Amino acid sequence: MPKVGVLLSGCGVFDGAEIHEAVLTMLELDKRGCEMVVMAPDKPQMHVINHLTGEVAEGETRNVLVESARIARGEIKNIDDVKAEELDALVMPGGFGAAKNLSTFAVDGANAKVDPSVAKLLKEVHSQGKPIAAVCIAPAVVAAALGEINPELTIGNDEATAKAIESMGGKHFVCPVDGFHVDEKNKIISTPAYMLGKRISEVHAGISKMIDALMKLIG
Amino acid sequence: MPKVGVLLSGCGVFDGAEIHEAVLTMLELDKRGCEMVVMAPDKPQMHVINHLTGEVAEGETRNVLVESARIARGEIKNIDDVKAEELDALVMPGGFGAAKNLSTFAVDGANAKVDPSVAKLLKEVHSQGKPIAAVCIAPAVVAAALGEINPELTIGNDEATAKAIESMGGKHFVCPVDGFHVDEKNKIISTPAYMLGKRISEVHAGISKMIDALMKLIG
Repeated sequence: MPKVGVLLSGCGVFDGAEIHEAVLTMLELDKRGCEMVVMAPDKPQMHVINHLTGEVAEGETRNVLVESARIARGEIKNIDDVKAEELDALVMPGGFGAAKNLSTFAVDGANAKVDPSVAKLLKEVHSQGKPIAAVCIAPAVVAAALGEINPELTIGNDEATAKAIESMGGKHFVCPVDGFHVDEKNKIISTPAYMLGKRISEVHAGISKMIDALMKLIG
Repeated sequence: MPKVGVLLSGCGVFDGAEIHEAVLTMLELDKRGCEMVVMAPDKPQMHVINHLTGEVAEGETRNVLVESARIARGEIKNIDDVKAEELDALVMPGGFGAAKNLSTFAVDGANAKVDPSVAKLLKEVHSQGKPIAAVCIAPAVVAAALGEINPELTIGNDEATAKAIESMGGKHFVCPVDGFHVDEKNKIISTPAYMLGKRISEVHAGISKMIDALMKLIG
């Protein structure tokens, strides 16, 4: 039974992990018999967005790990308590949380800094020859953390984001919502999901295929 | 294209809508080509639970509609702005929010009161001969709102909850997590989901079959 890390960044597309992408990732891993280690960093969110209005909720603060626990139904670990050695692979769902809480990509673009715990885990998982899968905007975090290996990544077809990924050392591949791309050399897989998707069923199609490819890379 | 209401109760199993059940409901409706009208009441949650610790977050307040908007990616309506006439069916995912925010079942058991907007919509949808599907603990809200029609409902196999449902006028049917029950006369369908489920894939199996049955009732 493969043991797969699922790295969350909060709970909600505009300030945390994209909920549909996170749940559909968990569904597809569970359907294939994987044990999941759901995790998140224990730190404050960059900010809280009212998802009804799209506005910043002034004066409100939430914690990335505590909010991610909503998606995980309480079964979640602090990322600092997870060792790369115990995982067979790592998956990162998207949502603005990846660009706001796991890295500073939303603010700094190609100059993004990656959360130290996230950067450490990504580098260790990769250096141990284990695959990494990144959904939606999460490939930008992979490029920021692992630019020196020139990872092949998808982001849909957004030119500004693609350019930023290339500036960080990544190679961008245009990809439809129900597709995915595999960087065989680096064992990195990605799918655009809601970077392009309008419907949950098409996002599901891409994530399902991506998890199939992940299982092949786990071997 | 059937137009199906999805009634949420917040965002998180312990104080709102169960996130997996809500997302999987939306996935299965979208896969079958349904248009969704996601909705929630605009009112404060009963309380906020820290999903990492399971404790009440003292002094914190959140709004049911605003938090439900996280699951809906902002595409959500105040339940008071939704008319039964515009819907072909209504689905209620579970989570403690159904028992805490849509009704007082978590506190009052068989003496539960239903939120007036929720009760009104349930009664109108039913009186118009349209089907209602309820997941996990949500059948308790159906029993509280529509006990006089003696709805046949599932809750898994929890004896106390089953007894409370029968006290409110419902008829309880023991059901496995990957099954569902149809009350043909009343056009009410239910599945136990996380009342019994340990894995997201088995919860998905039950919800998928329930939505199939819902489509048949819509006709």
